[in-house]
Amino acid sequence: MTAGFQQLEKEFISYVHKMTAYNEAIALIYWDLRTGAPKKAIDQRSQVIGTLSSDVFAMSTSDEMASFIAGLSSHKNELSEVTVKTLEICQKEYERNKKIPADEYREYVILQSKAESVWEEARAKSDFSMFQPYLEKLVEANKRFIQYWDKDENPYDTLLDMYEPGVTVDVLDRVFNQVREAIVPLVKNIQQSGDKPETDFLYTHFPVAKQKEFSLKILQEIGYDFDAGRLDEAVHPFAIGLNTGDVRVTTRYDENDFRGAIFGTIHEGGHALYEQNISSLLVGTPLAAGTSMGIHESQSLFYENFVGRHLSFWKCYYDLLKQHGSGQFDQISVEDFTRSINETKPSLIRVEADELTYALHVMVRYEIEKGLFNNEIMVEDLPEIWNSKYEEYLGVRPSNDAEGVLQDVHWSGGSFGYFPSYALGYMYAAQFKNKMVQDLPNYNDLLEKGELTPIKEWMKEHVHQFGKMKKPLEILQDTTGEGLNAQYLIDYLTEKYTKIYSL
Amino acid sequence: MTAGFQQLEKEFISYVHKMTAYNEAIALIYWDLRTGAPKKAIDQRSQVIGTLSSDVFAMSTSDEMASFIAGLSSHKNELSEVTVKTLEICQKEYERNKKIPADEYREYVILQSKAESVWEEARAKSDFSMFQPYLEKLVEANKRFIQYWDKDENPYDTLLDMYEPGVTVDVLDRVFNQVREAIVPLVKNIQQSGDKPETDFLYTHFPVAKQKEFSLKILQEIGYDFDAGRLDEAVHPFAIGLNTGDVRVTTRYDENDFRGAIFGTIHEGGHALYEQNISSLLVGTPLAAGTSMGIHESQSLFYENFVGRHLSFWKCYYDLLKQHGSGQFDQISVEDFTRSINETKPSLIRVEADELTYALHVMVRYEIEKGLFNNEIMVEDLPEIWNSKYEEYLGVRPSNDAEGVLQDVHWSGGSFGYFPSYALGYMYAAQFKNKMVQDLPNYNDLLEKGELTPIKEWMKEHVHQFGKMKKPLEILQDTTGEGLNAQYLIDYLTEKYTKIYSL
Repeated sequence: MTAGFQQLEKEFISYVHKMTAYNEAIALIYWDLRTGAPKKAIDQRSQVIGTLSSDVFAMSTSDEMASFIAGLSSHKNELSEVTVKTLEICQKEYERNKKIPADEYREYVILQSKAESVWEEARAKSDFSMFQPYLEKLVEANKRFIQYWDKDENPYDTLLDMYEPGVTVDVLDRVFNQVREAIVPLVKNIQQSGDKPETDFLYTHFPVAKQKEFSLKILQEIGYDFDAGRLDEAVHPFAIGLNTGDVRVTTRYDENDFRGAIFGTIHEGGHALYEQNISSLLVGTPLAAGTSMGIHESQSLFYENFVGRHLSFWKCYYDLLKQHGSGQFDQISVEDFTRSINETKPSLIRVEADELTYALHVMVRYEIEKGLFNNEIMVEDLPEIWNSKYEEYLGVRPSNDAEGVLQDVHWSGGSFGYFPSYALGYMYAAQFKNKMVQDLPNYNDLLEKGELTPIKEWMKEHVHQFGKMKKPLEILQDTTGEGLNAQYLIDYLTEKYTKIYSL
Repeated sequence: MTAGFQQLEKEFISYVHKMTAYNEAIALIYWDLRTGAPKKAIDQRSQVIGTLSSDVFAMSTSDEMASFIAGLSSHKNELSEVTVKTLEICQKEYERNKKIPADEYREYVILQSKAESVWEEARAKSDFSMFQPYLEKLVEANKRFIQYWDKDENPYDTLLDMYEPGVTVDVLDRVFNQVREAIVPLVKNIQQSGDKPETDFLYTHFPVAKQKEFSLKILQEIGYDFDAGRLDEAVHPFAIGLNTGDVRVTTRYDENDFRGAIFGTIHEGGHALYEQNISSLLVGTPLAAGTSMGIHESQSLFYENFVGRHLSFWKCYYDLLKQHGSGQFDQISVEDFTRSINETKPSLIRVEADELTYALHVMVRYEIEKGLFNNEIMVEDLPEIWNSKYEEYLGVRPSNDAEGVLQDVHWSGGSFGYFPSYALGYMYAAQFKNKMVQDLPNYNDLLEKGELTPIKEWMKEHVHQFGKMKKPLEILQDTTGEGLNAQYLIDYLTEKYTKIYSL
């Protein structure tokens, strides 16, 4: 029988390689569509995406997959670690996809696609009532799915588990309360501070070609490997790993505000470093990807904020920036420049929020989602609840649905449980940083000298290389010796912003 | 039973759509690899290409395909024309692929891949003897395949049929002899002419950005639709149709010789116009592609030479070129400029040959291939035969194998029968042109006014729209009312070059 399961393991891995190949083709199509595919390509290209996606879905729920799971699960001790972890992922996906009756799933896919177009129109008209019936159906469908999938204590935990395995409502309630209690008063104090950074020079003309040149240099500096990736433009910037040897970054250039391009590039570069540095042992399996949304976001946010907005970093690279600019920074000290790029103010739109207020935007959405799935909130009440929470946490109140409850695409696609990952990314990043400076006590010096390799190597050693071999909280525990601890983020933000705003 | 075959027709078309989808994904990967994919992408990307290609191959030779062929062939009168033609293509491919024993085919694929690397090395070292044993095996294998496939009178016809269905050795012998007898003396006369065009100004510095701007404009002018394509750079330029709404062009920029970029863009643009203008009724089937190598080449050559090297064309666009240049053309009349870009001289390398001498390069290869497959030529004698033929037809003799028999990649990949299509492209183009000026007697005026739409529309009506619905000689017959006639090319070349060189 030994030979039997070993043969099966081989077949399973080659089956998985095939699924990975299809997914890589889909990823390339996705990248291409968002970086310059001609518009008339799209009709027919959708057929290609449809064909390949159906193939992957069919393979993930096939009888063959069922035999692999059945035949290999009883031999876990004898299988390679990579096979065991791959099997776990495949099994989870198999069960998730199989447990929903086919009819219901088909209906749901149609609902999703309708809901997205309705949401677009509703947002354009700033009219939540148009979107409301669709959102109600999406919530209802997900409630049913939760019943099929799991019997967790809190139904919302089942949704969270898709994006951040191991992070539950209990954990989030604890850390979000802690963060909110510290940040809300800090935000209010800052509003009252008379010592605000000057920012006019940020909006002076900065030619696209020069922004691009600078972005390419900075990407190289943080350790991005251009033999394993490239930088392009996209309306909504993203990073995408086709394989670990091809992780592409996109950014967007605005001649009247260079920050979008520079910090966008560093942010997406952080995502890309993660995927470029996953162990080559995992290539061809679903393990060769970031372990969770939150850990992925921790990498982009770490590079954007702990590296890219750090005074020491700019002590090194400010001259280079000046060389690419058109004289607008000549009268500005590096200290004033760094203050300006760390300006914070409460705003209505999440994607434009700064690092201090961002988590508050997430909490609004988290509390609403939790309430919806625990039957404590009705969809029809969302606009009012949304606006009140913004007023309470951020001190600003949306004047219409478009700048309020309709601003995010996520719910229209049925993505519930995704938002918390954004805030977790900040917490993970701060917790990693706290540990990193113990290992690299000369952290600030490294930034000031532009020696960024040890920082990348640290991340590679503790986070990147593992791909999905470790779960998010396992990485956190192994690296920092403790579970999720929001205090690191709170300390970091308090110290930083107290100083910037002379509180 | 009626319902039976109608259902089968539906299933067949959806089966074919799936194969087309895989091929589109492969085409995008190919384009990406040649326009900027990072080098570390390639290992894993090859797995993706391998997976998708195997899928397509498996589908083309599956039992399911066999049932479609068996079940539908007896109902041809009742099927749509698109289904009938699609079925013919699938059947031809099925038979071609099925008739070679699987073991032999596997061996051949390995041989191909080895032969290509050996050829690269042999060319670098200019040593034919390294490549000789591989070429011998490739020829032997193809001779066996011919036995499996067909019992044509001339074994080489079976190979020609893959690239130019309907064009046989009989046809080629006739037209090539005719062309050779007219062109060889013309080339010799030109060599002796004292009135040679001045060309120095062609090699002055022309910035890449300006060449690119000009290329984009000219591409637009000839009627290329940028909503259904894009222009990129590639080391070996090509055009590629992913679908009819996405036909991409590539070019290459040399600051010391702008002609490569401009005429390369127009040439590839000609290929692209063909695929952009295929009828939308054929989308998703293998019919939505150029009907043959030769007809495809007729389109690129028509635009490159009959449009792009025409004095009337430059009477319209020379000012635009001057605006993009750096003053190098200011003292050059449009007549002298046009003479310069029509310079001809015998050379050793096919891909650098001009329109007058190109066909002679092809004939050398044709005669060698024909001799090999008729057992009249031995592989070991190729260098000597090659060099003698170059001396006879072109008056130049290669001094080594690299600039002689090893210059082309085709044979190392097992492509025999491909070369004649290049020369056929010239003949088709001249024959189309002769007919076109009967329909558009103001042809020169149109060029001079930059009104190129009627020219594209004529090509669309007679050639482009049909895709593979018509065979090459069918298109020629339907359009010009006769079969292949080399006299049009001969007349065109004789008149043009007699004038340019004041013979």
